[in-house]
Amino acid sequence: MQALVFDGQLRFAHEYHEPELAPGEAIIRPHLVGICNTDLEIVRGYMNFRGVLGHEFVGTVVACADSSWVGRRVVGEINAACFHCPVCLRGDSSHCPKRTTLGIDRRDGAMAELLMLPIQCLHVVPAGVSDQAAVFTEPLAAAIEILQQSHVQPTDRVAIIGDGKLGILCAQVLRLPGCAVTLIGRHPERWDWLGQLGIEAVANEEANSLYDLVVDCTGSPAGLATARRLVRPRGRLVIKSTFAADSQLNLTMVVVDEIQLIGSRCGPFEPALRLLERGLVRVEPLIADSFPLHGALSAFEAARHRLKVLLEV
Amino acid sequence: MQALVFDGQLRFAHEYHEPELAPGEAIIRPHLVGICNTDLEIVRGYMNFRGVLGHEFVGTVVACADSSWVGRRVVGEINAACFHCPVCLRGDSSHCPKRTTLGIDRRDGAMAELLMLPIQCLHVVPAGVSDQAAVFTEPLAAAIEILQQSHVQPTDRVAIIGDGKLGILCAQVLRLPGCAVTLIGRHPERWDWLGQLGIEAVANEEANSLYDLVVDCTGSPAGLATARRLVRPRGRLVIKSTFAADSQLNLTMVVVDEIQLIGSRCGPFEPALRLLERGLVRVEPLIADSFPLHGALSAFEAARHRLKVLLEV
Repeated sequence: MQALVFDGQLRFAHEYHEPELAPGEAIIRPHLVGICNTDLEIVRGYMNFRGVLGHEFVGTVVACADSSWVGRRVVGEINAACFHCPVCLRGDSSHCPKRTTLGIDRRDGAMAELLMLPIQCLHVVPAGVSDQAAVFTEPLAAAIEILQQSHVQPTDRVAIIGDGKLGILCAQVLRLPGCAVTLIGRHPERWDWLGQLGIEAVANEEANSLYDLVVDCTGSPAGLATARRLVRPRGRLVIKSTFAADSQLNLTMVVVDEIQLIGSRCGPFEPALRLLERGLVRVEPLIADSFPLHGALSAFEAARHRLKVLLEV
Repeated sequence: MQALVFDGQLRFAHEYHEPELAPGEAIIRPHLVGICNTDLEIVRGYMNFRGVLGHEFVGTVVACADSSWVGRRVVGEINAACFHCPVCLRGDSSHCPKRTTLGIDRRDGAMAELLMLPIQCLHVVPAGVSDQAAVFTEPLAAAIEILQQSHVQPTDRVAIIGDGKLGILCAQVLRLPGCAVTLIGRHPERWDWLGQLGIEAVANEEANSLYDLVVDCTGSPAGLATARRLVRPRGRLVIKSTFAADSQLNLTMVVVDEIQLIGSRCGPFEPALRLLERGLVRVEPLIADSFPLHGALSAFEAARHRLKVLLEV
């Protein structure tokens, strides 16, 4: 099958081996696959991954021992856990120590004609949710994880650092409980429609007040420093992005100001599908471009400077 | 008056100026003053403080415009806030941007014959609490701050890193909701009585499981690294100690494991006095030695390697 492979360099493979159906798993033919910043980081060495890239997808099940799944349109959680260790049984399967992760850690990803995931990872996409919306389920779930981890109050003043894909999704999720939301970024051309949603967007230099909750979606030490500057004493700083380097953070000031730092990663899929079905989150303005699978190398180049770039398989 | 002063070096002053009663404040004659690790850090340059050291005390009010305070035995919160800015009105007076801090930041401390604090900082000590117990109110409140900041569940498995004064107080506080508590330290000679309280104490090398809640009370980068090693995915890491240097912490792993880092500092005094009055926390085994005020330089030397050293004024 065709696949986009990273083996130390990014290359398009015409004859990559197809997945062989494993017990408890399903083989899926993706329709659309999103390019995520994590994919770009993997190409720079993150997680030392080798294999097929891609973890944001919507597709159709084409093979499964449980035939009721075959033909269903699905999205999939990316952490293939064991589902029976104490961590999984506590409800933390996305932290299973035995997990592999789709397109990120020891499991071939979705930028191919076929992919494989455990049945427990799959979620049926409601009929009212288009492929173009459903492909955002995974990053939207990651944004919703903030509400899952922390009690966000309607009176909270929230700042999101970074007006990229994840930042804009987080801003949209955090407007839903009624919070005042400010998005801090450097792409004014992306801001027009956000104002209509009640999300204020400003440049870094214009952000000078303090916020109850600050979310760093930049993936850069400079962005984290901005986030730290804007969080009030006893406030919360959610760190959304992984970056390869260790960060300097003055922990003494974290103690003196009693900041809570919250590492935040994958989130729950069912609420994400509900928000998409209810039309409470707009994803279509995030789509910058789409490419056929065999144009994946060009797509990666485009993704470096634009919002969401999709692959059509 | 006599006072222990830090002006770039630690020295005992025989004729330091007495505090002049300010509106809304009270002058207190301390009975006992505790030496805290923060005092030792100040002598190494922390906060760039100049003046009389000391912030843990119990004493008697000797002057106050509100005469009902005179003669009362009190302990005092160390943050002298403005009590009318938005931060104070939100209930966060210990984070007031205009605050001075007793013996730590632009306010002379308690290691003197007299000290001064705003009336709002004072708490009357119940008759059943001895001076030797009351002098622990401030550090005990700091331990209680963990319960104030975070929902600690009775089923949580808790590890405290550091068997110094603050670590032992935190372990005693966290045993109260019913948690399993392990204290990780390197002073086995301090552990005997802790076992009777149901607190397990072990050496670092013996600690190999993962904990729901880990509290770093070491004030050292090595201690923080141990704490990080022992916190489970989605667990909480409370950082109790301030240290002058920036710390290297792999924030990528904080995100991947979705750790919550909680900076934690001063806590509420009334619950601390209630725990002391109820006999739920034992402080007398923490007292290593006591010295007269004029022996303060020797007391500081002793405090470097022992548990609580007190000054008798």
